[in-house]
Parts: sequence; structure tokens; C-alpha cells
Amino acid sequence: MDLQLTGASAWELFCKVKETGPLIQCITNFVSMDIMANMLLAAGASPAMAHSREEAAEFVRLASAVLINVGTLSPEWTDSMRATATAARELGKPWVLDPVGAGATTFRTQTILSLVDLKPTLIRGNASEVMAVAGGVGTVRGVDSTASAVEALSLGKDLARRVGCVVAISGATDLVTDGHRVVACRNGTPLLTKVTATGCAVTALAAAFIACAPHDPLTATAHALAVFGLAAELAAREARGPASLRVGLLDALYSVKQSQVCENVLLNEANDT
Amino acid sequence: MDLQLTGASAWELFCKVKETGPLIQCITNFVSMDIMANMLLAAGASPAMAHSREEAAEFVRLASAVLINVGTLSPEWTDSMRATATAARELGKPWVLDPVGAGATTFRTQTILSLVDLKPTLIRGNASEVMAVAGGVGTVRGVDSTASAVEALSLGKDLARRVGCVVAISGATDLVTDGHRVVACRNGTPLLTKVTATGCAVTALAAAFIACAPHDPLTATAHALAVFGLAAELAAREARGPASLRVGLLDALYSVKQSQVCENVLLNEANDT
Amino acid sequence: MDLQLTGASAWELFCKVKETGPLIQCITNFVSMDIMANMLLAAGASPAMAHSREEAAEFVRLASAVLINVGTLSPEWTDSMRATATAARELGKPWVLDPVGAGATTFRTQTILSLVDLKPTLIRGNASEVMAVAGGVGTVRGVDSTASAVEALSLGKDLARRVGCVVAISGATDLVTDGHRVVACRNGTPLLTKVTATGCAVTALAAAFIACAPHDPLTATAHALAVFGLAAELAAREARGPASLRVGLLDALYSVKQSQVCENVLLNEANDT
Repeated sequence: MDLQLTGASAWELFCKVKETGPLIQCITNFVSMDIMANMLLAAGASPAMAHSREEAAEFVRLASAVLINVGTLSPEWTDSMRATATAARELGKPWVLDPVGAGATTFRTQTILSLVDLKPTLIRGNASEVMAVAGGVGTVRGVDSTASAVEALSLGKDLARRVGCVVAISGATDLVTDGHRVVACRNGTPLLTKVTATGCAVTALAAAFIACAPHDPLTATAHALAVFGLAAELAAREARGPASLRVGLLDALYSVKQSQVCENVLLNEANDT
Repeated sequence: MDLQLTGASAWELFCKVKETGPLIQCITNFVSMDIMANMLLAAGASPAMAHSREEAAEFVRLASAVLINVGTLSPEWTDSMRATATAARELGKPWVLDPVGAGATTFRTQTILSLVDLKPTLIRGNASEVMAVAGGVGTVRGVDSTASAVEALSLGKDLARRVGCVVAISGATDLVTDGHRVVACRNGTPLLTKVTATGCAVTALAAAFIACAPHDPLTATAHALAVFGLAAELAAREARGPASLRVGLLDALYSVKQSQVCENVLLNEANDT
Repeated sequence: MDLQLTGASAWELFCKVKETGPLIQCITNFVSMDIMANMLLAAGASPAMAHSREEAAEFVRLASAVLINVGTLSPEWTDSMRATATAARELGKPWVLDPVGAGATTFRTQTILSLVDLKPTLIRGNASEVMAVAGGVGTVRGVDSTASAVEALSLGKDLARRVGCVVAISGATDLVTDGHRVVACRNGTPLLTKVTATGCAVTALAAAFIACAPHDPLTATAHALAVFGLAAELAAREARGPASLRVGLLDALYSVKQSQVCENVLLNEANDT
């Protein structure tokens, strides 16, 4: 069966996000909080940042999906992350993991692996991070990747099958896989790499799309990446640098029209990658 | 006696903020820190973010007013919040409470109620939050409200009388009350709801206005809301979405002219609401 | 021997930052994280925010330089700051200290002094902060300075000689000294004082420049301040207020051209100041 990967299907799901306004509970790093909350709002979702041991797991009851990002990790937060992920699973709610900097330090890698054991719906990272999570030889340099998405795909597919989740690997072309099928997303602009936490924010956007299509996280993730990348393309036309790109990106997510999405989304199956 | 609620009175107090540059100590959530500090600076006040047990209460000596916002709450911060509020009271300095997410979780609601016991000068929240603080049946969905300001007014007035404070309830029309009189503020733009932490930031702005008129927190709060809402209206004229609205809002707070304030502030007593 | 303080030498070092993309590990306050990460990216460096006890010192191995900023200080962070500074020294990597609010509270001042003992490569603060660090009579009002850079220079020179570091004092004219020579930087715009954390961010930029010229932190710091100030000047030409200045500043750091740097950098030795 072919996957629905058109601009029309992306627009349809995006409209569902705007109409239902899913509440996305975010436990995320300090750098990303502002852009993540603003991106979710611009796209029509509703962000809630609640991270403490005392309430994170209780908060899940109110949420449609959960985003966990380990960026500025500390032990005080890891307990909450695990409790929240566990609560999400028990309540049957999707949860998404952004394994920032996997492989950089022992503490970080071990925390991430313990979260992977709690079976996220989606793991989204750059090639090095995905390789480190999969147990491969990912070379990490801080939070940037030194490998390409294609290099990480084989390990990413293994990881997806083993965990039973979707894995998205960011790059010039993003690759999304459930371990069997692979979707390539070619929307985006290189200038995005000069704006901090855009990767963190788009992972949260994927959580919002998945909340509106929990039966098909592969397609939902691909659609989220495409809509985000397209908004960045629209913003890049007038941007004078990374800061105006960021402003334009959020404005475009808020105001992008049906025709722009339908005509410019660049998604396709790429099972032979 | 009629309250002074004109554009001229708003401008007069705004000028006092710009001239004296009150230092506002903010213990606030991680999402709001950037926009709150920038909004205070744009308006002519001076922000200081100091939250730790070891110095927050000592820092109050330097401040003209204190803002406490419980957004990304954790136990490590609640002790500081209480110590700082207590110190502000003892020093006779105004302090303002933003009860973000009141009613969402047990931990959050209990922390907020313990802060209310320390008698803030102003409590500012959305309708659901005010109803939850007042002990009513506020329905909370994350940090958004599902009730209107008018619905919360009766409970808000009770709360104001019981605590001896001003209560401001945000909405399409903001309502501000000391338990006896009610002021309605109609400045603003709906697009503000798509920018995170604007509510947090305007509560800090209210603290700055109160610092310059500590004898009349009801009028000071109304003036702060009006100037903020008017700046948002000016920004909305040219905004292409929520991110450019945010940029324009801060620019307008910095550059708004006397005639614009005098002619466009929309404040009135609304005791029969 | 004359110092190289031309626009051409600033451009040369700036190009080295862009070409090598040094990884700057930042342990910094919550308010500054967004603008600091975005400024480093715009300038071609690579930011990594990693602060926890469990990994900060291990992370130093990956970094080219370290930035420590005590803005929103808490005891949980001070141990990491000291461990990271110690690790940087042992590995022979430059580290830079931003003593935000030195003198404001006992806890803050003592923490800063314990970090100074670990011999930073650069200390950068406003006049009051530098005077407080040097043990003088700096008058602090929150995080703003009430003294001028020239007033703090004598104590700053003493501090630089005693620690064996470079000291940069911000002001209308920035002064940079190694205790023997003094460089004045006149680039910048007063509107910068209305944008939060620009001082924090430029200290991180200085760390990136020092990472590319570790043998000469005096000149590297001066060049960083000049390039930053020049980008702010370019942005100020079109800014409508502090928020658009911030956008334009980051855009300009990304896109500023060789001729603009070569012709407009305002650096000179000022040993008789």
C-alpha cells in the first residue's frame, strides 16, 4: 500500500492540528523553550512546559502528546523524564524523544538509552545521535553531527524495528523510517542550521502532528517535517540572516496557505536509500 | 471618587517608569525569561533574574518590586519564592504573583495557595487560574483558560477582598479589581495569544508600574495593561504573524509616543460587569 | 611592539572563527541561552550548553573554549562551574568568566571570587562588576553598573596582573587590558543596553575569538568586541527599537562583509587612559 505523502495529505493533517489544538507537554532544554513554545503556538498547538518530579507525570493526563528533549540535562530532570514517559505509555499517549548530544558524554548516553527502553513513539535526531542511540559508531562533536543521514539509515532502521518506533534522521534531506519503509523529506533551507533549537522545535511539532494521527506516526512525522521545512523555505526568501529567518519561519507556520503547502511539499518513499 | 483612567494618566505613569527605571526582581519560568527581561528593558525598567535560595531574599533589598511566576515550577524554587515574597512584605515592597496553571496539578495549586497566603499586591492570571486560586471550579487545560474573564469576576472580587490585593483577569477584555471597583481594559489584539509568555511579561510590566505608584496598584495595573495592549495594537498593524508581532510589540513599547498613548488607551470603570 | 588592531586583523580572526567553527561550551544563565547560542551560530562558532555536574567537566574535552556566566546562579550550578573551569585549565583550554552582578549579594560575590581563583583567560564585566571582583568599592544596582569603564580601569589592571588574565570592562567605550596594555573599542550603539543578555552573548563571542588565537587573548577579545559592536551599528541603522535591533544584530554578524569590517572597526591602544 502506498503511503499518503502529498501536499494535500500534509495540509489535511496540519488543519487537524490547527482545529483541535493538541496540548503538547514539553520537558525540554532551556535553550529551546522559547522557540519550541512559539512554534507550537504558531502551528495551532498548545504548549505546556512542566518538568518537575512533583507534577510532570500527573500533567500527562491533560496532554495529547509528550516531548522529551535531553539538551541541558541534569539528574534532577532525568527522574521526571522517565516518570513522564512511563505515564504516557500507561495512558496510551504518544511520546517523542530528542536525544540531543547522544554519545557526547557517558551520563548523557546512558540517560538516553534508559529513555529508549521506555519505547518512545518517535526518536528524532541527527545522524550522529541516531548512530549513538543505535549503538553504532556515531561520531559526535558537541551537538552537531559529523555523519550524513544516509550513513545512519541502516542503524536507524534497526533501531526502529528493535524499539517498535519511528526514527527520523535530520540532514540536508531528512529520512524517516519505521524500520521497514523509508520516507525522504527534501523541504528546508541550509540557513536553518544557523538558528539554535530549530531541530528541537520541529521534534515538538512532530509530536503535535502525531497527536492528531496516533495510528500513523511515520506519515505524521514526515508531514510535520515537510510543513516545517516549507515554512523555512518561505521565510528564507526574505531573510537577511538567521534571526530574520527565525521570525519569518514562525510567521510562515502561522500564515502558510493551502496552495503553498499543496504545491511545495517534497515527500516521497525512498525505501532503496 | 473617579479613578484616573485616561490616556494622559497612563502616559504620566509610563514616563515615571522610564525616568526612574525601577529594578524589578523576577523569579519566573524558563520560557518567559527572555521576553520578560526584554519587555522590562523596552519599557524603561530594569530586570534582574535572581531565584536561588542563597540570594533571592537578600536581593529584594535592591529591588523596587518583585515578580513571582510559577510557570516551570520545581521544589528547588518554591522555597525561594516564599522567602522572597516574605522579604518583600517585610520591606514594604510590592510583589506580584502570576499563578500559571493553577488547578492543573496538586503540587502547583498548593504552591500557589501558599504564596497567596503571603499577600501579594497583585494576582494576575487568566479566568481559569483566578477561579482555581479563589477556590472555585476553574477548568484548566494546560496553561490556557476555558472560561472568560467575566465568568471569573465574582470569584476574583472575593479573592481580592479576602487577600487585600488587586486581581487582574486576562481575556479579550481584561478586568482588574480591588474587590470593590472594577476596571476594564480593551486594548490588545487576539494574535497575542499566539506568542508565548506575553501574559507573564505583562505581569512583570505591571510590577514596574506598581513600583512607581505603590499607593494605587489598581490604577497602576490597569495602566500597565493598557500601555502593553496598545503597543500590541500598534505592532499588529504591520505584523505578518506571531513572531513579527513580538518584535514589533517590544519595539513599540520602547518607541510609543505620548499622542498615541493619550488617544488610544481604552480604560473604563466597569463596576456593574 | 604595536598590537595588531586594524579592521583587517579583526576580519582575519573573524574568518578563522567562521572557517574552524570552534565549539564553545557555555555554562550560562537562563536569560542568555537563546541569544548566546544564536550569536555563536551567526558568527560561525558552534555552541553547546552543558552544565550538569555529571557531564560538564567531561564535556570540556570536546570544546575549544569554555564560557562561564553566573547570571541566574544556584548552588547546583556552582560545583559544575568550578569543575569545568578546573578541567579547562588542566587541558590547557581557554575559559572566560562573566561575573554578572558581582557585589550584589554575598553568595554571588563569593562564588565569583572562587572562580577567579581558577584563573580565567578573560574576565568581562561592567565597571561595577569589575570593581567588585577586584575588591574595590563598586556600586552595584542589580546587574547594571553605576560606574564608568574609565573609573574601573585602574582596579581592572591590578586584577589582570594579579590573576594573569585579560580584563574587559564594558561601557560606552569598552576597555580591554592585560594589566600592562590597554585597548579601547569604540564600536557599538547605546540601544544595545535595551536588549537583555547582549553583554553575556558578546563574552561568549570573545571566547570563540580567543579559541582561534589562544596565544593573544588581549587582541582576540578586542577584535570580538569590535566585530560585535560594528554589527550592532549596522543593525541600528534600520532598527525601530530594541527587538528589531536584536534581529538585525544577529543577521549582521552572519552577513557582515570584509569591507564593512575593514573600514569601520574602531580599535586603538589607550595605555594612558
